[in-house]
Amino acid sequence: MKARKIVEEMDSYVPGKSQDEIASDFNLNKEDIIKLGSNENPWGPSPKAMKAIQDEIKSINRYPESQLQDLVKRIAEYSGVDTSQVIVGGDGADEIIDVLAKTFIDEGDEFIVPLPSYMYYEYLLKQYGAKPVYAKWDLDKNELDVKSIFDSVTDKTKMIFLCSPNNPTGTLIDKEVLVDIASKNPDVLIVIDEAYFEYAEVTNKDLINEFDNIFIIRTMSKVLGLAGMRIGYGLACDTIIEYMHRIKPVFSLTRLSFVAACNTFDDKEYIAQSIEKGIESRQYLYDEISKIDGLNVFPSKSNYMLIDIRETGFTAAELALELMKKGIIVRDCTSFKGLDEYWIRISICTLKEDEKFINILKEVLN
Amino acid sequence: MKARKIVEEMDSYVPGKSQDEIASDFNLNKEDIIKLGSNENPWGPSPKAMKAIQDEIKSINRYPESQLQDLVKRIAEYSGVDTSQVIVGGDGADEIIDVLAKTFIDEGDEFIVPLPSYMYYEYLLKQYGAKPVYAKWDLDKNELDVKSIFDSVTDKTKMIFLCSPNNPTGTLIDKEVLVDIASKNPDVLIVIDEAYFEYAEVTNKDLINEFDNIFIIRTMSKVLGLAGMRIGYGLACDTIIEYMHRIKPVFSLTRLSFVAACNTFDDKEYIAQSIEKGIESRQYLYDEISKIDGLNVFPSKSNYMLIDIRETGFTAAELALELMKKGIIVRDCTSFKGLDEYWIRISICTLKEDEKFINILKEVLN
Repeated sequence: MKARKIVEEMDSYVPGKSQDEIASDFNLNKEDIIKLGSNENPWGPSPKAMKAIQDEIKSINRYPESQLQDLVKRIAEYSGVDTSQVIVGGDGADEIIDVLAKTFIDEGDEFIVPLPSYMYYEYLLKQYGAKPVYAKWDLDKNELDVKSIFDSVTDKTKMIFLCSPNNPTGTLIDKEVLVDIASKNPDVLIVIDEAYFEYAEVTNKDLINEFDNIFIIRTMSKVLGLAGMRIGYGLACDTIIEYMHRIKPVFSLTRLSFVAACNTFDDKEYIAQSIEKGIESRQYLYDEISKIDGLNVFPSKSNYMLIDIRETGFTAAELALELMKKGIIVRDCTSFKGLDEYWIRISICTLKEDEKFINILKEVLN
Repeated sequence: MKARKIVEEMDSYVPGKSQDEIASDFNLNKEDIIKLGSNENPWGPSPKAMKAIQDEIKSINRYPESQLQDLVKRIAEYSGVDTSQVIVGGDGADEIIDVLAKTFIDEGDEFIVPLPSYMYYEYLLKQYGAKPVYAKWDLDKNELDVKSIFDSVTDKTKMIFLCSPNNPTGTLIDKEVLVDIASKNPDVLIVIDEAYFEYAEVTNKDLINEFDNIFIIRTMSKVLGLAGMRIGYGLACDTIIEYMHRIKPVFSLTRLSFVAACNTFDDKEYIAQSIEKGIESRQYLYDEISKIDGLNVFPSKSNYMLIDIRETGFTAAELALELMKKGIIVRDCTSFKGLDEYWIRISICTLKEDEKFINILKEVLN
């Protein structure tokens, strides 16, 4: 059987290492590994969410509800939008991006991503035959190179992906810039990825009432503590949401994800504390890393920060390996297009883990 | 924003009713509703799966593993195939079908479905611009009209979907027929949907070693009791599996689905009992329904059966509504292409529920 031309031309699948394999390869106790690689909430899920899952376990032989009204209502409230402006994804924000592509992308369309940014946009959109056009983040100024976006627009541009705060740079995009890009490109969908917006305490969700070409991506995998349950959502004008519902997978959200999501939104205290502790951890890490010679850390509005390590003499792969040997997982950013081999990204942990990490980092660098 | 032409032409999204709404509309106690509509395992999930979920709840703030090796190993063992011949889907079999389409379907390709059959193949493949060509099940003989399959093949045929046991007729397709279709169409992917194979105690999985154009779809939503956790898998030659891995969603299986799946496969006793009790319930329902005047029930190799109700004077919609008023959900099959408005499908329940259903059914028909 021949696959589609696009698939034939893709790189072969190379399985990565599981956490069990990492633990055994480096002779580590799996429980002691400190995970600074995946931008998760290190304080665990909401107790209310855990309780709700427990109560629902006996019903997992039954299909999920397809309507998800209780969850849509809570997302609308949390986001300050109408329920008709909400769509839920059952594989985190990744499903939302996939459904966006399926709704709007024809083969040969172009999409713009300023580099470096989240790589999954490209992974997914290429599958639909779309062509990436790269704009850029100005790493010297630590801001979006707005001109590079405008310069990248062609007749074929269908989407522009703008992650704010941007992964991995941690930087926000000014609302005026977003408005400028959306107004001047009324036939292009401006996809604003707000996966980390809670940590910045800034959102652009009000723009969906003014622009029918703005789409906001959100996730419950970060501050909301549910990465393992795969829940994402999107906010946009009701026309876009209605189109997406026509082709969205019907049952992709598990029963347990549904109750976990509803009960997390009900747990206001958990959310507030997760943000507060996250910002505290970020400040601590930034301050401590700033003091270390040879590291150039970017200030961040998110729950991770990008570090330029070229002055240490290590490549990112080398430093990540040395840290791994001591039970610390960081993100080697070499695979991010737009970054060379001298960048790592670390995410917040509990203050105790932060301290341990800082000590080990100093040890490795000396 | 204009959607793709295919999406613009699709029917608008009309939200269905949630179970809460059904309960409140018909003044029913949600817990008392008997669900014969969705072909689930009525005896609940495996106790080992429930225990495993409980132990994993505290880790749901962490991303799932992407490799799923422990699960792939168990599926390979359960199915008697090599691990390189397995792919796991995080939205039940529906994700497997979606990834199949993304791997093989180009706009303008054709796929064949004999009607009536599972409607989701068409729902998904149309999104990729493929055109359905309808073959047929011979409802008088209660078997696949094999000639109609061969007559439907054109230069553009890319896939043939053959569900065995077929949903909703409950009928098996002979292995010789599958071999005949696969041998004569080496450039067409023959997709054999074995969602219900355990209830038939028949599989065609050995064919993946002989044919590189055969793909077997399986699910954990039926006998394995995990409909709410959305786990499916596919079996095929390693070339097809490798192609699909190139574009498969990376994290679509939740952490809790993963542990539930692994521990269900480890619970051999649960699986054996679920099959045994399912077959017992099927026999009871078939025998009792056969005795009722005006109902023509199809013998079934699965966990549901199709009933021709035209002699009762009810349409399927009317009968389903009358049963619903008394707390029984059955499947009105009017939306199945290839069936008219006089068919319902019922699935197995516990013997106690079966009895209650039979009594209420008699009551409604008299």
